[in-house]
Amino acid sequence: MNYGIALFPSKELQDHANSYRMRYDSHYSLIPPHITIKETFEVSEDELPSIVSTLREIAKNAEPAFIDIYKVDTFYPQSNTIFFKIREHESLTNLYQALHDDPFSANDKYGFIPHVTIGQDLSSQEHSDIVGQLKMKKIEHQETINRIQLLYQLENGSWTVYETFHLGKDV
Amino acid sequence: MNYGIALFPSKELQDHANSYRMRYDSHYSLIPPHITIKETFEVSEDELPSIVSTLREIAKNAEPAFIDIYKVDTFYPQSNTIFFKIREHESLTNLYQALHDDPFSANDKYGFIPHVTIGQDLSSQEHSDIVGQLKMKKIEHQETINRIQLLYQLENGSWTVYETFHLGKDV
Repeated sequence: MNYGIALFPSKELQDHANSYRMRYDSHYSLIPPHITIKETFEVSEDELPSIVSTLREIAKNAEPAFIDIYKVDTFYPQSNTIFFKIREHESLTNLYQALHDDPFSANDKYGFIPHVTIGQDLSSQEHSDIVGQLKMKKIEHQETINRIQLLYQLENGSWTVYETFHLGKDV
Repeated sequence: MNYGIALFPSKELQDHANSYRMRYDSHYSLIPPHITIKETFEVSEDELPSIVSTLREIAKNAEPAFIDIYKVDTFYPQSNTIFFKIREHESLTNLYQALHDDPFSANDKYGFIPHVTIGQDLSSQEHSDIVGQLKMKKIEHQETINRIQLLYQLENGSWTVYETFHLGKDV
């Protein structure tokens, strides 16, 4: 089964992201606005309990994640994905690192650019129009997220949360 | 903020429900297939920590929920909602009861009919056609769900998971 790990920001930020996503993001209905901290990976039913206990341990030893959004940016020319860019922060980098160390596989494809996607699968014309508009807007938002979510993917491409792990706090 | 509490069944059952929901359920994109165990209730930011610790306690003292789906049914004439009907079981009834006792408010509007919605907001004609077809199909599925999820609602009507609570097991 396909699993992924994400942070869900506050309702305020999700509502803000959705105001763009409803128009620009082909994944709008598949998952709420989020920060991917580990891309899709496969886990068998047998492996799941050990993955879950590893995640519990990683989360316990992590700090809450500091989210500092400071601009709209795009992955162009790699892709036409538009996003709220999040400033690099130790809390995020360390968490990402822990989730890509043994027993997890590393991500050799991309470096980690923390972000909240607000548009994807746009035509080149739409993409450049929207990036042009949104780069003019001042986007500033800070918050701390104290949990990560392990999700699995359904056949229609949407995601269901399997479990929540608290960052840095044993409750 | 609006919160709700739901059980998410296995991927297999969610995929099955979605095969109907994609055609018949106006809420298809707002939340994955689920069993509502507590309808929308309001919680202020101040109250949230105490609600969360109450839920943790309730979950710890609950049994895993036994889900036995045995037919397709409809709430007609109360509403045109079509659903997989779940046989009453102590594990579900007790959990429902605990989530409607003090400090939570009771649900005076409806009795508890455990179900997974697969269609809603249909015209009368569509509703009776679909119910007619689906009642002929044999639908049988059993599973045990060992967690509940506390969700909150975004402005677009969709739901984000806030936290998972394990039923009956202290991990």
